[in-house]
Order: sequence, then structure tokens, then C-alpha cells
Amino acid sequence: MKSVNPLALPESFFSQLTEGAFLTVRAGASLNTMTIGWGMIGVAWERPIFTVLVRDSRHTYSIMERAVDFTVTVPTGDMNDALAFCGTRSGRDLDKFEACGLKTKPGLRTASPVLDVWGVQLECRILYKTPMDPSGLDPALSALYPKHDYHTLYFGEILECYEQEGR
Amino acid sequence: MKSVNPLALPESFFSQLTEGAFLTVRAGASLNTMTIGWGMIGVAWERPIFTVLVRDSRHTYSIMERAVDFTVTVPTGDMNDALAFCGTRSGRDLDKFEACGLKTKPGLRTASPVLDVWGVQLECRILYKTPMDPSGLDPALSALYPKHDYHTLYFGEILECYEQEGR
Repeated sequence: MKSVNPLALPESFFSQLTEGAFLTVRAGASLNTMTIGWGMIGVAWERPIFTVLVRDSRHTYSIMERAVDFTVTVPTGDMNDALAFCGTRSGRDLDKFEACGLKTKPGLRTASPVLDVWGVQLECRILYKTPMDPSGLDPALSALYPKHDYHTLYFGEILECYEQEGR
Repeated sequence: MKSVNPLALPESFFSQLTEGAFLTVRAGASLNTMTIGWGMIGVAWERPIFTVLVRDSRHTYSIMERAVDFTVTVPTGDMNDALAFCGTRSGRDLDKFEACGLKTKPGLRTASPVLDVWGVQLECRILYKTPMDPSGLDPALSALYPKHDYHTLYFGEILECYEQEGR
């Protein structure tokens, strides 16, 4: 496990993220992971921030709303099967970890665990969140919301960022 | 001028940004630039996105609210004097470009110009914006808002990203 500066990530980070990453969140006894292909990284409020977007129709949303933190795992190994499964099936219906043989490891500083796979791990505390206001939406984006299940944006302070080698 | 993939920026990008960058915006006859030290880059809504935060007490805010786009210039040369000036003086009181000897160049795809200096140029169309809702603010952030002049977050679709060498 190698500590990584989240504000000096390798140039390949976003190409890996857009191919698929895992957003994992725990609140009390509820735990889920979902595939994400979007995310933003940077600095705000004098802190390193990672931002994720979750539609309010998602099982993950109901957990995020009760959680204090989340983790993002950007895999470097071949996780295509698990990414496809966790992006199309809902944690309401089954245990994705069991179904995909995904193991978790405790977060170093988060109640939410990380996936125990090769890749970059981000442990984030939810610092601010904002549900999208459809009245302010650019018409170019409306096509992304035919069911009006808008995203909530969760801005997470990056508490830990490290690269995990080996599984 | 060299085109740059905004999602594969050099690892030094954020250390330069946090030392100071310029947010430049034009709306009609109004034009201003201000120093920023925060920003987020990533992917959302199937597009490359750069996000800036502007307090509603700022002159730039009044222009952003009427603008359709903005640019960000992350300088690679020594711009410390101009960055200090544009971060402390208001465009309400003087013409910062004239005061600092800053020249602009037309944006390739934005009504807002870019600063004609060495560095990375981002031309962004405002895709979504959201004023911060203080009711959802983490207490850890309250200290940043003693005057309750909260930020509005502007999510800009990155239309062009290039590195400018020479001034």
C-alpha cells in the first residue's frame, strides 16, 4: 500500500475512472457498492475534494443520505465483469459483494470500507452535498434525465488516498 | 499553442492552481478577472468539467450570473504580482487588466477571453450552477463564511484546453 497525493494523480487516472470505478458506502448495517464513471477531483474549502454524483433512484442514494463518508476504488486490474454487474444490478435485490466475489477491507479513516482490489483508493468524508435543481439545468442535460431521477452531488474531503497493489 | 487533454493534465496542475490561477469572465460589456486557488476537474454529464467557486460578494459573481462561459488560466510563469493584485482588488473599483498590464486574447470558443500569458488555458461553457445552501453546510466549513457570503459553484463544460507558450 503506497500513499498517493490525490492532487498529483497519474495522468491515466481519469481514463481508468471513466472505464469504471466503484463507489462504496456504509451507513449503519447498510452497505453497497455501485459502478461509477463520473467524478471530479480538486481543491475547495481549503481541502482536497472528490465529488461523486448519485441519482436519487439508486439504492446507493438511500445509504449516502445516511452516511458520513464514502470510498472510491479506481481499479487498475481487469474488473470488467464486476463493473458491469455492479452498474446494472441493484443492491436492493442482492448482495453485490457476494454475487461478484468482491471482498472489502476496512477504511483507514472511514466507516465505509474499500474494495480489496488493485487500484487507487480514496477515502472521503462527506463535507457538502447538493441535490441537482432541475430548474437550473442546461437544456443540453435534460436528455440525461428522462425519468427525472436527478443526481445529488456529494463533495467528499479526501482523508486518505493510496494505491493498493495485490489482492 | 498546444492542445491538451484536460483529463490527462500534468501532475503539477493542482500545485500550480493552488498557487493561483485566473478566472476570467465576460458578459456583454462587463469583463473581469480574479485570482482563484480552488477548482475541480473531472467528468460529469458525459463531459469534461471544470468547476469554480465564486462568493456572491465578488464583482466576478455579478458577471458570472449573466455570462454563458468563463475561462481559467493556470500560469506557468511568474505571475505572483498580478495574482496578488487580482486576488485583493475588486474590478468594481478599477480595471485590473490595465492596472496589471494583463493582455487578453479572444477565446477560441468562448465569449470570455483568456489571459495572454504562459500556462494552461481552459475555455468553459457554464453547464450547471448551484448556490451553496448554508443549511447543508458541515460545521467545519462555517469558519470560511463569517460574512455569510457563500460560494456559487459553476460547473463548466471544458470546450477547449491548451497550453500557451510565449506571451
